[in-house]
Amino acid sequence: MTSITLRGGDRVLTVAWADGTSADFPFLWLRDNCPSGFHPQTHEREFDLTSIPETLGILSAELDGEAIRIEWDGEEHQSRFDADWLKAHRPGVGLNDPANIPPTLWRGDFQPAGLPRISAADLMNDDKALLGFLIETKKTGLAIVDGMADDREAGMAAAKRIGFLRETNFGVTFEVRSMPNPNNLAYTSHALPLHTDLANQELPPGFQFLHCLANDAEGGGSTFCDGFAIAEDLRLNDPEAFELLSKTPVPFRFHDDNYDIRRHQTVIDLDAFGKLQELHFNAHLAGVFDLPADTMEAYYRAYRKIMQMTRSSDYVITTRLEGGEMVIFDNRRVLHGRAAFDPNTGYRHLRGCYVDRGEFDSRIRVLSR
Amino acid sequence: MTSITLRGGDRVLTVAWADGTSADFPFLWLRDNCPSGFHPQTHEREFDLTSIPETLGILSAELDGEAIRIEWDGEEHQSRFDADWLKAHRPGVGLNDPANIPPTLWRGDFQPAGLPRISAADLMNDDKALLGFLIETKKTGLAIVDGMADDREAGMAAAKRIGFLRETNFGVTFEVRSMPNPNNLAYTSHALPLHTDLANQELPPGFQFLHCLANDAEGGGSTFCDGFAIAEDLRLNDPEAFELLSKTPVPFRFHDDNYDIRRHQTVIDLDAFGKLQELHFNAHLAGVFDLPADTMEAYYRAYRKIMQMTRSSDYVITTRLEGGEMVIFDNRRVLHGRAAFDPNTGYRHLRGCYVDRGEFDSRIRVLSR
Repeated sequence: MTSITLRGGDRVLTVAWADGTSADFPFLWLRDNCPSGFHPQTHEREFDLTSIPETLGILSAELDGEAIRIEWDGEEHQSRFDADWLKAHRPGVGLNDPANIPPTLWRGDFQPAGLPRISAADLMNDDKALLGFLIETKKTGLAIVDGMADDREAGMAAAKRIGFLRETNFGVTFEVRSMPNPNNLAYTSHALPLHTDLANQELPPGFQFLHCLANDAEGGGSTFCDGFAIAEDLRLNDPEAFELLSKTPVPFRFHDDNYDIRRHQTVIDLDAFGKLQELHFNAHLAGVFDLPADTMEAYYRAYRKIMQMTRSSDYVITTRLEGGEMVIFDNRRVLHGRAAFDPNTGYRHLRGCYVDRGEFDSRIRVLSR
Repeated sequence: MTSITLRGGDRVLTVAWADGTSADFPFLWLRDNCPSGFHPQTHEREFDLTSIPETLGILSAELDGEAIRIEWDGEEHQSRFDADWLKAHRPGVGLNDPANIPPTLWRGDFQPAGLPRISAADLMNDDKALLGFLIETKKTGLAIVDGMADDREAGMAAAKRIGFLRETNFGVTFEVRSMPNPNNLAYTSHALPLHTDLANQELPPGFQFLHCLANDAEGGGSTFCDGFAIAEDLRLNDPEAFELLSKTPVPFRFHDDNYDIRRHQTVIDLDAFGKLQELHFNAHLAGVFDLPADTMEAYYRAYRKIMQMTRSSDYVITTRLEGGEMVIFDNRRVLHGRAAFDPNTGYRHLRGCYVDRGEFDSRIRVLSR
């Protein structure tokens, strides 16, 4: 600790640690993050940033055991920072985040046998096994739970072990089976081409849980593809299509007797740094495109291109859920679909619910403590 | 109807109506939206866009009473479009949306007496009154319900009349009162400077409902400001600050024993067209800024600027909720706060919940049918 050196600069305090790490801490940043400004129980910031002048200076900064003590110029206040805390929070680096797990992209040659897998018993009772499973599930975006009880509530209980459920206009849970008077194609026996759910929502649900209670009908196999792999390949091989799909919002809409939920979304959604954030791909819920007529043909070319990729064996994997299995997937990354089934040959019933990405990541962080 | 004229162009069909409206319909758009491709009950698109060639042509297009009949070249198929439907959905225009209501900005001279107001009885029982109230509430982003029953469930019931409730890590509902061992500053008697709730969430909740069950303590007045007015004034008067606040994601974080929910957000969030979409402003939940040190001072200047605006009488209005009143506001537009109160002088208890923007808009559309 004694090998830390401090140096005042142009409104920054430079701290150099013994291991060679060095960082600049702007005065305002230091004052804003003074430990005395946070509520001891809620950890929330109570300090009022407008209470100090923009020109706040430092009278003195010195080492004090494991800490750095600052006396402010322009305000009657002293701050005391733990040197390790400063190192972990140095500007330009960002706090370490156990849930920051980059996706491992997969394509059509990926074997379903290689999917992350956990038993329902371990998921419910073993924190360490659950953490490992959640981390692997974030990597692939797709995973299986087996040994589920033949109980309509079992899928919900497993999902709630990760986070509270995200309600939608279809309810807190939903039943995927052939029904009379369906308000959604999932509730028919028709084939469902690969899609993301509820692209018509402002924020479509994150992780989807589909507990297979019965799959005895002929047909009804499950298909998946990694939408991020498709998008990255498109970015590389057809940048014009990628550009159109990531910059052009198109309408999505669901409407029935009780709801009319609409939203313009880009098919490919990037974050502020150009990194893939989520996909919105759902031909059933795609509205009537409202682009100007003269850009429509170029857009359709790009849209058909990504659609064809979602039908290609280069990307699609096929599996068949058995009763007692539950599939978990990131609905904003991994597209899901199913083959048509014949409801006269047997019963097929999946029960689903959603846990959003925020709660999923939160569980990883809390289990990582 | 006989005055409609059709003209084939470069892969577009031009339709001209008697009133002078004229529009180009690209061939692929027409085929993609052929009414035969939609499920009759779910209204969802079943047509497979990859089943036709990109070069699909038109053999003939002709008027047929109120409709336009197209015979396709390259596929054995006829389409029949209602001429009015085509006009309503013409490219570049977009479907009419009753929920597309531009905000009416307000500032510190806005009188709380001018807020949209409805009685709980009308909200619960009168569809027409509710629709008018929802439209006005979208304009101002802030409104009052009065005559609420002195019943802990009354606020929830009113909110559910609009849409299902958005659950968060604080529950489906939350109690705003002074509590021992708080995990949130709202649950103390401290002053709360103006903020938006849960800026640490991927999508912070939309409309907030706060039912005032008791407000008998000294202090505890409510403050509000229109964040969109502040942002638009900043865009005009300090474009550099606006640019930094709308382009620079900063971390927000809530953590307690059960959750650790983090998200980088820009303080000002714009849609693809540069229009204000939402604000994320919450100094309590703002994390430790992780920008590079050399951009930190410029960012702090911008951040302090908007913070000072949220404290200025140019923008802030003050009111005092009475028992039996409920305030509704768009949490991603209107910032809310309160004065400190003295819990020894009387009881203060608000009960809150959220309905997201998507469901709020959906209710406007359904009631507008």
